[in-house]
Amino acid sequence: MNTETLEQKLESAIKTAVLLFKKDRVTGSTGNISFRHEDKIYISCSGACFGWLEKKDFAVLDMEGNVLGERKPSKEYPLHLSIYRAKSSVNAVLHTHSFYSTLWSCLEHKDEKDVMPAVTPYLSMKVGRIGLIPKAQPGSEELFRYFEDRINDSDGYLLAHHGVILGDTDMQSVYYDMEEMEENAKINWYMRKE
Amino acid sequence: MNTETLEQKLESAIKTAVLLFKKDRVTGSTGNISFRHEDKIYISCSGACFGWLEKKDFAVLDMEGNVLGERKPSKEYPLHLSIYRAKSSVNAVLHTHSFYSTLWSCLEHKDEKDVMPAVTPYLSMKVGRIGLIPKAQPGSEELFRYFEDRINDSDGYLLAHHGVILGDTDMQSVYYDMEEMEENAKINWYMRKE
Amino acid sequence: MNTETLEQKLESAIKTAVLLFKKDRVTGSTGNISFRHEDKIYISCSGACFGWLEKKDFAVLDMEGNVLGERKPSKEYPLHLSIYRAKSSVNAVLHTHSFYSTLWSCLEHKDEKDVMPAVTPYLSMKVGRIGLIPKAQPGSEELFRYFEDRINDSDGYLLAHHGVILGDTDMQSVYYDMEEMEENAKINWYMRKE
Amino acid sequence: MNTETLEQKLESAIKTAVLLFKKDRVTGSTGNISFRHEDKIYISCSGACFGWLEKKDFAVLDMEGNVLGERKPSKEYPLHLSIYRAKSSVNAVLHTHSFYSTLWSCLEHKDEKDVMPAVTPYLSMKVGRIGLIPKAQPGSEELFRYFEDRINDSDGYLLAHHGVILGDTDMQSVYYDMEEMEENAKINWYMRKE
Repeated sequence: MNTETLEQKLESAIKTAVLLFKKDRVTGSTGNISFRHEDKIYISCSGACFGWLEKKDFAVLDMEGNVLGERKPSKEYPLHLSIYRAKSSVNAVLHTHSFYSTLWSCLEHKDEKDVMPAVTPYLSMKVGRIGLIPKAQPGSEELFRYFEDRINDSDGYLLAHHGVILGDTDMQSVYYDMEEMEENAKINWYMRKE
Repeated sequence: MNTETLEQKLESAIKTAVLLFKKDRVTGSTGNISFRHEDKIYISCSGACFGWLEKKDFAVLDMEGNVLGERKPSKEYPLHLSIYRAKSSVNAVLHTHSFYSTLWSCLEHKDEKDVMPAVTPYLSMKVGRIGLIPKAQPGSEELFRYFEDRINDSDGYLLAHHGVILGDTDMQSVYYDMEEMEENAKINWYMRKE
Repeated sequence: MNTETLEQKLESAIKTAVLLFKKDRVTGSTGNISFRHEDKIYISCSGACFGWLEKKDFAVLDMEGNVLGERKPSKEYPLHLSIYRAKSSVNAVLHTHSFYSTLWSCLEHKDEKDVMPAVTPYLSMKVGRIGLIPKAQPGSEELFRYFEDRINDSDGYLLAHHGVILGDTDMQSVYYDMEEMEENAKINWYMRKE
Repeated sequence: MNTETLEQKLESAIKTAVLLFKKDRVTGSTGNISFRHEDKIYISCSGACFGWLEKKDFAVLDMEGNVLGERKPSKEYPLHLSIYRAKSSVNAVLHTHSFYSTLWSCLEHKDEKDVMPAVTPYLSMKVGRIGLIPKAQPGSEELFRYFEDRINDSDGYLLAHHGVILGDTDMQSVYYDMEEMEENAKINWYMRKE
C-alpha cells in the first residue's frame, strides 16, 4: 500500500510534470496530471503549464466529481475520474499530447481495442493493451461518454486526434508507462511501412 | 486588463525567449519577441540571441515606428507593428523559425488564407486560421507590404520560406499559441501523405 | 591501467547515466549501466531510473553472478557478466534503448555478424563490428544463451527488437561508443532508401 | 577589431562548446573548436568532450602548425589552420557532426562547389556558398590536401560522410552560422523529395 503523504504525492506529481515538460513530451499548456489521495483526486488546474507547475496549481475533487476548494480543475477531469472509478488499483493518471502517441491516434486502426503492435515487448509488459477512443471535441460530454463506454476494453488509451491517457498504481509507474508508450508509438510509426 | 508593470513584462518576455531557445524552437540569432506597454512597443534588438536575452536587449518604439532610446530594434519590427496596429487586443508578438512551421511555409498551399488543416482541434481553438504571406526577402519593404495586405485575412501567419509570426493578448498566451502551431505543423507534415 | 577508486567509478557511472537520460538516449526506467572494480561488478539495480541514479542504486556481483549485499541487480545482469567474462579489457558496460539503435535492431539483416554499414567511419574506428542477437524475451534465459553464443562474433551488439549493449575499457569510452552507435544507426536509417 | 582578451575568448569558446553539446549538435567526443588570438591558434585538444570542456583542454599552435605547450591538439587541426591561413578575416572555426549537415554530406551533389540549395534565405545571407570536400579518412593527409585544394571554392564546407566545418570573424558569429547551416540542411533534407 502506498503510504506517501499528500505533500510527497504533490512533490512527485510536480517532479513528473516538470520532467515531461523538459523532455518535450508536453508543450505549452497541454497535458494534465492527477493522483488519488485517501478518497480525493488532486488534478492540475485549468490552463496550468507543466513547466512551472506548483502545489497551488492543483484542484481537488471528490469521487463524484464535486470540486472542493477554489481551484478549477482541468476540463479533462472526467477522463481522470473515469479511470479512478473503473480501476481501484490506479492511483495516478497522466494525459499528454506526446508527439508519436498523438500521431498514432490520428491513423485508422482495424481493431480499436488493440491499436499498438508490440514491436518491442516493453509496452505490453508494462501497460498491456492500448485502445482507441473515437474522435470528439476535447472536454466534451461526447468524449467523456466514449471514454466511459470503452474504459474496460483496454489497459491504456489513445484519444483519436488528441493524445494519450494512462493510469497506474503510482506516479513513477505511470511516468514509466507514458515513456514506454511514446517509444513504442515512435517505433511503430517508423516501422509501419517496412 | 493586463496590469503588469514594464519590469514584469520584460521578465516574462525573457523567460519565454530563453524557454524557446532551450527547447530548440529558435536557434542561433533567429527569432524576435515584443510586447506592448502603455502606448509603446518593446522588441528584442537586432542580432540578439534568445538564449542569453537580457533587459538591456530590448529596443523601444512608438506606434508610428519611431525608435526611442539607443537600442536598434530587430529589422523585422514592422511585422510586429502591423499586428499591434491592426489588432488592438494583441499585447505580445512572437516570431520564430520553429522547424515544422517553417517547413510547412515552404510547401505550396491552395488557399493561402487557410493553410493549416486542423488534424487536432487545438490550433483552431487557440489561434484560429493560419494564412501564408508570400515569399520576400527578410526585412524587406516587399515583405512588410505583403504582410499589411493580408493581416486581416487570418489569425496567425506563416511567412513563406521563412518562419511564423503570432500575436495574442499576453506573452504566456502567445507562447502557448506558438507551441500549438509547431505541434500542428509537425503532425500535418507527418500525416500529409497518409 | 585504470587506477580510479570505487567512489570515482560510481561517480563516473552516475554522471554518464544522468547525461544519457537528459539527452533522451534512455527514458523512463529503461537502460542499465555497470563497471568492473577489482574482481566485482557494480550494476544499476532493478527498476532504477537513469535520471535520478544514486550510489545506493548499485547492486554488487562477483564474477560468477552471485549477488553480494542487499540490492537486487537489473534483470539483464547476465548480459553484462557475459561481456566482462569474455573480454578482459572491458571495464564498463552500457545497455540502452537509444531510439535509432533500437529501430535498427527491428530490421532484418543479411549478415547478423555485421549489421551496421559504415556510412561514416567513426563507429568502426571506435567500436568495430556490430552483431545482432536474435529476438528473445528481455531477461530470459533464451536471450542470455543467444548472447553467450554470439559474443565473440562482433565488438558491439544490437538485441533484436530490444536495444543495444556495448562494453569498453572505461566508462567514458563506452559512453562515446554509445553515442557513435546511435549517430551511425540514425544516419543508416535515413540513408537506407537513398 | 576584436579586442577580447585570451581569457574572454577561452570563455566564449567553452560557452559555445557546452551549448552545442547541450543542444545535441555534437555528441560524445566529436567536434572541435578553435580561435585565433594574436598570431596563435587555440584549439580543443585531442579526445576532448564539448560537454565538459575547460580552459586546460585547449592546445596552442603557431601559424605553421607547430604545437606550443604540452597539450596535444585535435587531429583535425590542419583543417582549422587551412582556414585561418586562407582567410585572414576568420578568427574562430567550428567543426561538428551536426546530424542533418552530416546526412547532407553523405548524398551525391552535382556541383560540389555549391551543394546547399537556399530553401530559406538565411544560410546564404550569413555564410554564403557551401562546398563539399571529397571523402577521406578523418585526420588523414588525403583529407587535408582535398581541403586545401578546395578552400577558396566556397565559404563553408561539408566533409563528405563526416561533418561540417565553418569559420567566421568571431565565435558568436560562427556559432550562429553553424545553427543556420544545420537548419538549412534539415529543411533541405525534408524538402528534397517534395
